Amino acid sequence: MSTKASGTKESRMLYVDGLENSIYDRQVFEELQRGNITCAVVTMAFWEDTLETMDEIGRWNDWAEQNSDLILIARNTADIQRAYDTKRTAILLGTQNSSPIADRVRFVELFHNMGLRVMQLTYNNQNAIGGSCYEAEDAGLTRFGKQVISEMNRVGMLIDISHVGERTGLEAAEASSTPIAITHANASSLVPHLRNKNDGLIRAVAGRGGMIGIPSYPKICGEKYSANIEGWCELIRRTVDIAGIDHVGIGTDIGRNEDQKYLDWMRVGRWTRGEFFGAGSAANPGVTPPPEFMRTTEGFPAVEQELRKHLTEEETAKIMGENWMRVYRDVIDNPRN
Amino acid sequence: MSTKASGTKESRMLYVDGLENSIYDRQVFEELQRGNITCAVVTMAFWEDTLETMDEIGRWNDWAEQNSDLILIARNTADIQRAYDTKRTAILLGTQNSSPIADRVRFVELFHNMGLRVMQLTYNNQNAIGGSCYEAEDAGLTRFGKQVISEMNRVGMLIDISHVGERTGLEAAEASSTPIAITHANASSLVPHLRNKNDGLIRAVAGRGGMIGIPSYPKICGEKYSANIEGWCELIRRTVDIAGIDHVGIGTDIGRNEDQKYLDWMRVGRWTRGEFFGAGSAANPGVTPPPEFMRTTEGFPAVEQELRKHLTEEETAKIMGENWMRVYRDVIDNPRN
Repeated sequence: MSTKASGTKESRMLYVDGLENSIYDRQVFEELQRGNITCAVVTMAFWEDTLETMDEIGRWNDWAEQNSDLILIARNTADIQRAYDTKRTAILLGTQNSSPIADRVRFVELFHNMGLRVMQLTYNNQNAIGGSCYEAEDAGLTRFGKQVISEMNRVGMLIDISHVGERTGLEAAEASSTPIAITHANASSLVPHLRNKNDGLIRAVAGRGGMIGIPSYPKICGEKYSANIEGWCELIRRTVDIAGIDHVGIGTDIGRNEDQKYLDWMRVGRWTRGEFFGAGSAANPGVTPPPEFMRTTEGFPAVEQELRKHLTEEETAKIMGENWMRVYRDVIDNPRN
Repeated sequence: MSTKASGTKESRMLYVDGLENSIYDRQVFEELQRGNITCAVVTMAFWEDTLETMDEIGRWNDWAEQNSDLILIARNTADIQRAYDTKRTAILLGTQNSSPIADRVRFVELFHNMGLRVMQLTYNNQNAIGGSCYEAEDAGLTRFGKQVISEMNRVGMLIDISHVGERTGLEAAEASSTPIAITHANASSLVPHLRNKNDGLIRAVAGRGGMIGIPSYPKICGEKYSANIEGWCELIRRTVDIAGIDHVGIGTDIGRNEDQKYLDWMRVGRWTRGEFFGAGSAANPGVTPPPEFMRTTEGFPAVEQELRKHLTEEETAKIMGENWMRVYRDVIDNPRN
């Protein structure tokens, strides 16, 4: 496969969106195709338990069957390649919480059997594995957390620490025998926010072959970097300065069809009767409009064009998708069984 | 592979036990190996729900890893062949109830992903799919039941109706596009018992390419046929007279390590605070000792020898395992996807 950009469809660049947050329907699948997205990681669970997540996998199995002209569910990078070759989008099934495994280490393999390929250790709250970015204290990776990481390594499932506390995230990077990922967060040195990560953690992840995916979600990009495509591509390039050209990709965190009800579920789930605003605030509790340049994933080709004003074709290809592909090959195609 | 018996290990007959009920440990796996059992269907659930069954699958994954010199978990008949070639036992994961799918049709595929290959539509009680042999009335296969059958056909999972009501069983045979099985029951014309099946149902199952597996569990074989190996092999031959030589196999229903607690769970589960004795009775509520000739699956070679006194080598091979293999090839290797 050529992954070099040439402006022709035959040798188009391979695009990967390392984390999405949408409510999917056929229109969103069409947007993915029009955006030339070869692979997208979707979120099947925030707080969903085992059965609820299995319901969601079932829904994806139906969608894949009903929209086989647009998508396929990928179990490895050969499937992603097949999506590229047929100009479809490979869906990598992901969760932003480990709630589906119900604190059972053996469920990692069973969810892998069902198709899960990317799992975040914890979402906004501390759990049995470790701490979250929103907790006051992070006690680090637990004994159970180490077991889960070992099991994810063994079966070939990518570890995501985007919402994880920094201490737990660092200890996860150290405990894992495979590269891990911050699928959708920024450097807090560039954009101070509880959700973003310090340079030390980013470098630890990168130093072990891992990745940071740059989100376009305005609340964690800041006004400057999400004002326009030039600003956002500057954010990407500044992150490259921290992590290195081989360790930055895109993880838009895009939320197509997201509404207040969905946002409320993401934020408060079933863990509080009160309020919590996630990356937002009481003053700004609503759904954040996406930036103009990434209202849908149809924004990807313009990002390629903008990046190429400052980076080589090869460097641009790495950011647009090749870095993710390298990590997927290393982690997902290569179980440590 | 030669499946002909010749008395040498190199061309030994392939044995399949179409349904077992044991509590497994390494000793039981050794018994399977010593009995030359190439394939055994195990029971992972009677009343167990989704998570409990997933726990059990996880346990099997561990056992398979820890006892890889004795067993492997089979996903298709190529795996069973591999077990034969390496003189191990292929475990086909099964359940005696559809409780794991939690009334969700999509969970059939997900449990297939996790390894489930044989599922009984219902156990001793009516459920959302259909009626049971112990209910006073059997209203037949429900609309949901038809969906489950269609899904089991699609993914390649064998339908078991051993404890199912006769009307539901007959309608399941008619609804299924693949052969179905009575994995462990007798002809009620030979041994009257609520658990056993009338000749019309047996012939309907056989007429569609399916199977009846003869149990050695004394309570449903009667005294005469479980008194000794000669009697039991007569029961097999008499069932052949009803179903045909291509449609009878063995499904011992053997319960190694079975104790009163396990028996109580099988019988009353969580559905009653009162008593229920399953195939037993208030006068005879305890664990039934197995017949002398099948105290463990080490009894299989003697069954081969006894059957060959009355049947040809080819006929004996069909009963000892080849008929099950044909059905597994047709159903499990050949999803109607």
